[in-house]
Amino acid sequence: MRYQGDKNAGGLHIIADLKSNYRLSDPDFIGSVLTGAAQAAKATLLDVRLHHFGGGNGVTGVALLAESHISIHTWPEWDLAAIDIFTCGIDAAPQAGLDHIVTKLRASVISQQNITRLI
Amino acid sequence: MRYQGDKNAGGLHIIADLKSNYRLSDPDFIGSVLTGAAQAAKATLLDVRLHHFGGGNGVTGVALLAESHISIHTWPEWDLAAIDIFTCGIDAAPQAGLDHIVTKLRASVISQQNITRLI
Repeated sequence: MRYQGDKNAGGLHIIADLKSNYRLSDPDFIGSVLTGAAQAAKATLLDVRLHHFGGGNGVTGVALLAESHISIHTWPEWDLAAIDIFTCGIDAAPQAGLDHIVTKLRASVISQQNITRLI
Repeated sequence: MRYQGDKNAGGLHIIADLKSNYRLSDPDFIGSVLTGAAQAAKATLLDVRLHHFGGGNGVTGVALLAESHISIHTWPEWDLAAIDIFTCGIDAAPQAGLDHIVTKLRASVISQQNITRLI
């Protein structure tokens, strides 16, 4: 297994806030979106953790990756989802991971920042 | 329980890379640092997940919070730890969470960015 990626390739941390009103209070769906995002990002998935705040409230989900992590926090009452995708190594494709999430949540990107780390 | 903080107060996402050579391959220690960081940040801890890459290798750890999350990824072979702390709500104190991690890891801050989100 890749070990947290190749430091020499640095890391890219994408921070994105999304507008969506699609299934933001459905933890099973959010979990499947995280799993799909890890695959799209060409990352090795170690674990997915989900917390649902109940009823029509939001979900917190984190995917632990061999290459770092992906997180989703949702606020269905405000049509908002906050995403971060942090991957290390030349093989990782974090933008493809974000694109997957945007597609699955039928979302639009309100803001995005790409931060280069560990170099 | 607070529900992912108060959107009207916005969210603050701190991204920091640290230099440290102290117990970066000890998952129990990294877990205790995450728990302490959540307390210092005045956050409600939901769950801590840890993955150790074995032997003298690094650790990935994520604390799920009612106010979002804290993550640590360590590379002991390079004396590096990558931190992100994302909290929402006026009561949260993410900088105090980072300060706790810096103290416990006997670290210096290589770089830090503070990103205001969800406003």
